[in-house]
Amino acid sequence: MATAASRAELERLLEDDVPYGDLTTEALGIGGAIGVMQFAARAPMVLALAEDVAAIIALAGCDVELFAASGAVLEQGAPILQARGPAAGLLRSWKVAQTLIEIWSGVASDTRAIVDAARAVAPHIPVACTRKNVPGTKRFAVAAIKAGGAVMHRLGLSETVLVFPEHRVFLGDLPLFQAVERLRRAAPEKKLVIEVKTADAALAAAVAGFDVIQAEKFSPAEIAALVKRMASMAYTRARPLIAAAGGVNAANAAAYAEAGADVLVTSSPYLAKPRDVQVEIASADDGTRARLILRKDAAVPAST
Amino acid sequence: MATAASRAELERLLEDDVPYGDLTTEALGIGGAIGVMQFAARAPMVLALAEDVAAIIALAGCDVELFAASGAVLEQGAPILQARGPAAGLLRSWKVAQTLIEIWSGVASDTRAIVDAARAVAPHIPVACTRKNVPGTKRFAVAAIKAGGAVMHRLGLSETVLVFPEHRVFLGDLPLFQAVERLRRAAPEKKLVIEVKTADAALAAAVAGFDVIQAEKFSPAEIAALVKRMASMAYTRARPLIAAAGGVNAANAAAYAEAGADVLVTSSPYLAKPRDVQVEIASADDGTRARLILRKDAAVPAST
Amino acid sequence: MATAASRAELERLLEDDVPYGDLTTEALGIGGAIGVMQFAARAPMVLALAEDVAAIIALAGCDVELFAASGAVLEQGAPILQARGPAAGLLRSWKVAQTLIEIWSGVASDTRAIVDAARAVAPHIPVACTRKNVPGTKRFAVAAIKAGGAVMHRLGLSETVLVFPEHRVFLGDLPLFQAVERLRRAAPEKKLVIEVKTADAALAAAVAGFDVIQAEKFSPAEIAALVKRMASMAYTRARPLIAAAGGVNAANAAAYAEAGADVLVTSSPYLAKPRDVQVEIASADDGTRARLILRKDAAVPAST
Amino acid sequence: MATAASRAELERLLEDDVPYGDLTTEALGIGGAIGVMQFAARAPMVLALAEDVAAIIALAGCDVELFAASGAVLEQGAPILQARGPAAGLLRSWKVAQTLIEIWSGVASDTRAIVDAARAVAPHIPVACTRKNVPGTKRFAVAAIKAGGAVMHRLGLSETVLVFPEHRVFLGDLPLFQAVERLRRAAPEKKLVIEVKTADAALAAAVAGFDVIQAEKFSPAEIAALVKRMASMAYTRARPLIAAAGGVNAANAAAYAEAGADVLVTSSPYLAKPRDVQVEIASADDGTRARLILRKDAAVPAST
Amino acid sequence: MATAASRAELERLLEDDVPYGDLTTEALGIGGAIGVMQFAARAPMVLALAEDVAAIIALAGCDVELFAASGAVLEQGAPILQARGPAAGLLRSWKVAQTLIEIWSGVASDTRAIVDAARAVAPHIPVACTRKNVPGTKRFAVAAIKAGGAVMHRLGLSETVLVFPEHRVFLGDLPLFQAVERLRRAAPEKKLVIEVKTADAALAAAVAGFDVIQAEKFSPAEIAALVKRMASMAYTRARPLIAAAGGVNAANAAAYAEAGADVLVTSSPYLAKPRDVQVEIASADDGTRARLILRKDAAVPAST
Amino acid sequence: MATAASRAELERLLEDDVPYGDLTTEALGIGGAIGVMQFAARAPMVLALAEDVAAIIALAGCDVELFAASGAVLEQGAPILQARGPAAGLLRSWKVAQTLIEIWSGVASDTRAIVDAARAVAPHIPVACTRKNVPGTKRFAVAAIKAGGAVMHRLGLSETVLVFPEHRVFLGDLPLFQAVERLRRAAPEKKLVIEVKTADAALAAAVAGFDVIQAEKFSPAEIAALVKRMASMAYTRARPLIAAAGGVNAANAAAYAEAGADVLVTSSPYLAKPRDVQVEIASADDGTRARLILRKDAAVPAST
Repeated sequence: MATAASRAELERLLEDDVPYGDLTTEALGIGGAIGVMQFAARAPMVLALAEDVAAIIALAGCDVELFAASGAVLEQGAPILQARGPAAGLLRSWKVAQTLIEIWSGVASDTRAIVDAARAVAPHIPVACTRKNVPGTKRFAVAAIKAGGAVMHRLGLSETVLVFPEHRVFLGDLPLFQAVERLRRAAPEKKLVIEVKTADAALAAAVAGFDVIQAEKFSPAEIAALVKRMASMAYTRARPLIAAAGGVNAANAAAYAEAGADVLVTSSPYLAKPRDVQVEIASADDGTRARLILRKDAAVPAST
Repeated sequence: MATAASRAELERLLEDDVPYGDLTTEALGIGGAIGVMQFAARAPMVLALAEDVAAIIALAGCDVELFAASGAVLEQGAPILQARGPAAGLLRSWKVAQTLIEIWSGVASDTRAIVDAARAVAPHIPVACTRKNVPGTKRFAVAAIKAGGAVMHRLGLSETVLVFPEHRVFLGDLPLFQAVERLRRAAPEKKLVIEVKTADAALAAAVAGFDVIQAEKFSPAEIAALVKRMASMAYTRARPLIAAAGGVNAANAAAYAEAGADVLVTSSPYLAKPRDVQVEIASADDGTRARLILRKDAAVPAST
Repeated sequence: MATAASRAELERLLEDDVPYGDLTTEALGIGGAIGVMQFAARAPMVLALAEDVAAIIALAGCDVELFAASGAVLEQGAPILQARGPAAGLLRSWKVAQTLIEIWSGVASDTRAIVDAARAVAPHIPVACTRKNVPGTKRFAVAAIKAGGAVMHRLGLSETVLVFPEHRVFLGDLPLFQAVERLRRAAPEKKLVIEVKTADAALAAAVAGFDVIQAEKFSPAEIAALVKRMASMAYTRARPLIAAAGGVNAANAAAYAEAGADVLVTSSPYLAKPRDVQVEIASADDGTRARLILRKDAAVPAST
Repeated sequence: MATAASRAELERLLEDDVPYGDLTTEALGIGGAIGVMQFAARAPMVLALAEDVAAIIALAGCDVELFAASGAVLEQGAPILQARGPAAGLLRSWKVAQTLIEIWSGVASDTRAIVDAARAVAPHIPVACTRKNVPGTKRFAVAAIKAGGAVMHRLGLSETVLVFPEHRVFLGDLPLFQAVERLRRAAPEKKLVIEVKTADAALAAAVAGFDVIQAEKFSPAEIAALVKRMASMAYTRARPLIAAAGGVNAANAAAYAEAGADVLVTSSPYLAKPRDVQVEIASADDGTRARLILRKDAAVPAST
Repeated sequence: MATAASRAELERLLEDDVPYGDLTTEALGIGGAIGVMQFAARAPMVLALAEDVAAIIALAGCDVELFAASGAVLEQGAPILQARGPAAGLLRSWKVAQTLIEIWSGVASDTRAIVDAARAVAPHIPVACTRKNVPGTKRFAVAAIKAGGAVMHRLGLSETVLVFPEHRVFLGDLPLFQAVERLRRAAPEKKLVIEVKTADAALAAAVAGFDVIQAEKFSPAEIAALVKRMASMAYTRARPLIAAAGGVNAANAAAYAEAGADVLVTSSPYLAKPRDVQVEIASADDGTRARLILRKDAAVPAST
Repeated sequence: MATAASRAELERLLEDDVPYGDLTTEALGIGGAIGVMQFAARAPMVLALAEDVAAIIALAGCDVELFAASGAVLEQGAPILQARGPAAGLLRSWKVAQTLIEIWSGVASDTRAIVDAARAVAPHIPVACTRKNVPGTKRFAVAAIKAGGAVMHRLGLSETVLVFPEHRVFLGDLPLFQAVERLRRAAPEKKLVIEVKTADAALAAAVAGFDVIQAEKFSPAEIAALVKRMASMAYTRARPLIAAAGGVNAANAAAYAEAGADVLVTSSPYLAKPRDVQVEIASADDGTRARLILRKDAAVPAST
């Protein structure tokens, strides 16, 4: 499972598209002919999900050679993979495989653009992507974000502490530092994150003891002011990180980095345009047909 | 997945039958002995699901050689497959594998009988099978129908337009040609099919613009009369196809074909008697035992 | 789950047939009209899977009243259920529901015929059905067999001990009584069953200590002879049961019962013809539409 | 299941985001407080997946009232739904619900824009969307496309016949009309579709007998020329439909419609920007707590 | 889903135990009789999984009233729940429900013992439990740990950074502070944790910049020494937390807390003895039988 | 599937622990380095689940050699397996694999201790373990019990007849022998088991015709008395077996065996302490990286 998805999940993608056989291929009677399928980048891209795509084609009954791994930066025309096998296998897996690479390489490429823009200014600044992916695609979204050089802001609600104003409406008049105490006991090994929408709220959160102040929809100038203000304060623990969030994208990432944000939080890569993949399928048929031999599953030990 | 079912589905069939180990084999202490299992046709049959069955046996830990592919016409005694491996694997997969071939080869064989009967008269007439398969077995039913040389009438409600009288009770007094207009806009790339029970209804449907008139429970003579009547009408589009449905089987298929039906629609293969498969299991044990070596999953690329 | 299948499984049956909406109903624009759907027996039948079918229709969004429970003997014309709800829900669930009842009530009815035939002679004789159901349908098959008044011979390989000749090829020259000892230790709370094809083998098995002798393809006369012979032998434990198996059906069940078999084992109900169910759908639409209110899931407790 | 997804699938979406409880809410100790959550359109939109979202919130333990159904055109500020229940349920379901509506209402809205643009010129022209959705989200994609007023071009490879050039490389020198004959026999109740990239190929396909000519990346002018040319030809069957595909979007849909295309085929809605949904969560807590009473599942009949 | 598991998962637990009906209850013919089932604590316990158990019983067709929520401290004899419904539903759900509460309340109770022991000395010290639960039971394990008042150390490998010596063997001669830099960029919003086995390694890790030093198998005295030593060092960030891990249990938790550990990390609750639950089932049958009426699924909106 | 679990289930265990990649390993950038991982027994143990663990590691992308099979008795230090592959694969599978072996080898070892203790006195006495395993882990529990040399008392409610007092409350005043008649007809090929709590009840059950008397919480002396008493009675069938149940463990197993119990029924192995497994991971990296070649799935036949 160097693939992002399990084999069972990849089988389900094939089933979603071809639940009861490939009608056109079967009707034409061409399924047994041997062919070769090549994937190449039609434009520059950061490649994503290549291993999953290769596994899908292998599950459809073809041998696959991958020429590049997820995360690779591809020039226009760069080869991605070559598969060889019966036309039935090539034609069944083609579109799912192509769509998967195109969409998620789009996400990876846009992610990389933000990372590169920010790091041109602040060479080590991390970019963290939110969980606003299409529901049901988290496995692929996370893989694409990582291929693009960013990290996940949070995977879900079970493994991070992020206090929204929507939580605070239920806190009544509990002082914020007491909320921090509750959180610290419940999550001693986590950083405590809070979303704030004003500088005042940010400072109050810093004083209350949060580890990360997620400044929502601050302009770069507002971030810079906040950074300056927070640098001048004293802390019993370390100075909180400032995470700029809300509207961060490739166009303004450098400005936010320059303003001194410690982390950039963004959902914008999920809006990426797919990156086109060129697929060429050619006949390599010489009339021979594979013999119908199946080997015992490789991961089954001999029983005793 | 030249198999009809995914590997995960085939594993579930094994689990349904052997959820917690094979009690008899384990109790006898014979699981590690090497054996050979042969499947052969006990009577003439059209073979179905052979690839799925071979995959099941491979998943149970045995090597398998298939001697015939699904769709093949087998003489009595014709070999189907040979498997070799530990008795545990042979005995675990035996009955599921045998039952799967027997039942679905029955369906394929009865399907072929209808196809052959109809085509003796009308060499290119298509036979289409309904979706009245046992709920939960569509993957196998479709594969068997295709192995028998027929096609699927419809896979379900999401991908075809077929108006039943039961729809029309909700249409109020909407004229039928207006219903056709609605359908045409919603399904421009589909043929519009309507079930009718009388010749008058058939003609009205043809005039209203349906592409296929599914004549339910018409006798061959009634079909012939309908064909004649419809041939004499003028159409703005092409003449609708006449699909004879309801009670079509191997005994009357030729009569319906001769009557001029364009398509035969039938559920009768689902009533097929299973075709017996002879299974022979022999010991091939020489006392050696497989070494417990597992190879990394073939479909897992090296990670980086 | 007085249903045979879980709610998740029933949802999957609906999905199999209607994965992406009901194209015809949507295109006609009639989904919101309220209707009433009635199921009735078109011929006498033993009803099966009625609860599962009712749950499917409820899952599709309709209220359902069941007029008979699975296992009931229905006269021709007897009502089975009535459902009321939006046309979308009625038309989506109709065919899956109808097919499920028709097929499995066929199995239940044929089962009952065997049971009745045998019990006319031997009032308490049990009829046990094999696991030769269509792979993937065990949940429904077991329910139908029970609705028909029979019991399951075995559910699979994990919970019963049944020695086939195919096991014995791996036993070398181990005496049968030693095999019995092995089995007795591994399955002290199970009856030990063995399949035999000759009277000699039956006697040897009885002597070796098996609890049930499954006489495969014995004629009634051969069973009678075996019964007589075995009654005259002495046993350290109880006399083994004689189970007549292989070719037992409604026509010969009385003969086998009369011959003295203790149990009849049969696969023949799986070959049953479906029993037709009459479905009537009528409009009950008065133009009102349901308000879009959803209640919290009944099985979710308030959280704290 | 007036929802697009089954209840089991909706539960999985919740699990993806909250696999092991909502850490922040639990740590703050606010889960049992009662609150009210409101969703409203932050900008004009065509609503999608509203029923699924309501079901998710109900599964999380809250009562929900939907103010609009999928497919509705919402003004800015229009209310979508109101939910009431424990904070734990509101906060658990909030983001999944919001993201689901935002993304798929974006797809529905962009779909509607194309439909409206085309129909301003050709009032009944159908718009068909391809299957280039994010793999793994077909259930939602289809629902959103329909909410937007378009139809699905094809659901997958099992239920439509569409010949690509990539199929033809395996056909050798088989004349195209013979391929049509093969297809016609295998799919008598389907329209035969072919993708062509030149006018010459389109004409050849029309002559060979295809029902739909999918003209890939033709300009509106090229479509107009093709329409004119094809109108002047004679056909034994009906004139084939011309489907304009490849690069069709809201900006050029009118031009393609005006050019005389019979159907517009497009993937562009999948690139839609999400439409923002405003979520407001307020405390409605009065200190009372729900009693821990669970009712038997509504869809479980009493057993007997 | 105030339950830890989804409804689909709870259905699977029932299926695991009762895949094809409850043979004994059916054979006795008592399934339709109405009964009452009561669960009470046979010994003092911290209750866990009560909501899941109630949902299981409701899924089996009974009404349930919960008298206590998960996390409650129960005296001997304290009532847990009462269910009422057909014997079939009570007897089907009984043992799964009882076992689930017994095992996981054991884990919750042992967790609470450690928490109480530690907090008697250090009132706010958090106790964090590892992921060494029985594979396949994480959903329940996490719920029980939380019911016991502890928190999860980590849910898995995807959401926390914890460097083991086993990682370091692949780092070659990379200085540890450079590893910290890598980690900080990849996980800016996470605390960095490292497992160390000696005080020297702990100090090196602190200097290198880790946020949490997980001291593996240190005695309380060694922890105290480490605390003292680390308190005397200067840090550019905050002083790292010291997490005592390896062998922490209720007997030594106070000593570790007294030694100054900031967090206690333990796997020991997973070894807990189940806490016995007394189950009483009584007949409440008065001969009436429920009518077979099913309501449309509560979470299904009316379709339009 | 000489593994206890299917490949899909084993993939789910990996996903439970590593749903979205291994954050630490990825952040350190060491995933592609080649390493070797060795598992050895840290203390004497009966090995369990070794095949499943090997398959998990293979699914994670490594080659594995197993040095011992499940059921083997291992000395301290005995090697269990060696795996070789990329660090990413080793580190991803390590803990799940280790935990799985440790926990279930604990169960197997404690099982074996009871078996050995009992058989020191009664060499062939069977030990049967109950179904009180952690819900959701039955597949592994059964495998471990068998590895320990015991058998399963019952797998669930569908395949055995065991009458509890809780059933009898619904029987009204039905005489017990009539209950036996009902059961015998419903389960002719099963032994009838009844749980009793007093000697009187045991005798009554024996007289009524049960095959196995499960004496719940009898002391060894009480068992001995019951054995003696029951030996003196006359039976129309064989003498019932006496199964000692409730509190049976390694310390008293010999006493119960000596007392003459025919079977020992126990849940105590489920309380077993895990047996520690030593894991060593070493770098074997020489800078080479695997080529990205995937072979078509071994269990996919060539399509035609």
